[in-house]
Amino acid sequence: MNICSYTYEEFLNLVRSFHGHVAPGVIIGGFMVDLALATLQAEEPAGAICETSSCLPDAIQLLTPCTIGNGRLKVVNIGRFALAVWAKNQGKAIRVFLDPAKLAAWPAINAWFLKLKPKKEQDSKAMKKEIKEAGSQICSLHHVKLNPAFVTGESHVLYGICPTCKELYPTVHGVRCLACQGKAPYIKSPTKD
Amino acid sequence: MNICSYTYEEFLNLVRSFHGHVAPGVIIGGFMVDLALATLQAEEPAGAICETSSCLPDAIQLLTPCTIGNGRLKVVNIGRFALAVWAKNQGKAIRVFLDPAKLAAWPAINAWFLKLKPKKEQDSKAMKKEIKEAGSQICSLHHVKLNPAFVTGESHVLYGICPTCKELYPTVHGVRCLACQGKAPYIKSPTKD
Repeated sequence: MNICSYTYEEFLNLVRSFHGHVAPGVIIGGFMVDLALATLQAEEPAGAICETSSCLPDAIQLLTPCTIGNGRLKVVNIGRFALAVWAKNQGKAIRVFLDPAKLAAWPAINAWFLKLKPKKEQDSKAMKKEIKEAGSQICSLHHVKLNPAFVTGESHVLYGICPTCKELYPTVHGVRCLACQGKAPYIKSPTKD
Repeated sequence: MNICSYTYEEFLNLVRSFHGHVAPGVIIGGFMVDLALATLQAEEPAGAICETSSCLPDAIQLLTPCTIGNGRLKVVNIGRFALAVWAKNQGKAIRVFLDPAKLAAWPAINAWFLKLKPKKEQDSKAMKKEIKEAGSQICSLHHVKLNPAFVTGESHVLYGICPTCKELYPTVHGVRCLACQGKAPYIKSPTKD
């Protein structure tokens, strides 16, 4: 049993090294990516969308050339455990999702994902066994047509110096940067050393 | 010259393998992460914020335990080439940013980042030489106080089945999932095979 070009064990090691621990969601994500790529009739995906920010983006980043930093992976966090991949010059994408109708047959995975039991009462050993055995059997796939608004990157960003913080920012954001428009993730504008 | 625990060449190879090509932004990002971690008085960062979705998130994911999928890296895309990292139980973070005042001394990097010349006329060899020589000399750092709203994860998401698409979704989103509320990144709701 392989996950893309890796053996199951090799993939677990990759996940441990990148994600920090062998999270069930990343392993399931590995099987989802594997299914999506096997269905996609192309050497590699040109891009990917992930519908959750939890676990699944790391499986995509580990198994495809699509990363957050190269812009080929977009996280559109609408909370479904699903991904879509597409090939170059194809308007259609393959979407793979965790299918609740199929999940019901795997009680330990089901209990974990749906939080049916408190964490302490969940059988982690049984869950890991089920994840390996189930593979992509808990997923379904279909074709979707991409909304270009979510796919097109910021192609030609021009920078200027913000008159307030004196840092570089995309001038398309306005006369000053978004941080100085109140969108900074910090409490009040920092005082520079 | 090292970038965190890697030699410069080792880091370039990592970047090539993960990001797909040796992008100047990821190399500069590597020096920025290195500077941030050297300043952070902790074994490893508990979390990170990246203020751009371009290049820099991959340097953070390669050099710290913070990834998109494990929730320890948040991209707050306000367009500044900057990152912040923090240690556990510290309200303050170290923020490192590309400093335009310092960038001016490095003409090839400056021309590339600010797109002062058409791509064809840029001297890519000179730029790579400058990037290696400059290291983190083109950056500045200061302390910032984090806004908890951007740092706290989705801790205990409860899932239900969406009555429209029959998929699992966080019930906190409403009576149906965000995709079925019109937020899907696809053109019209997909027909399932």
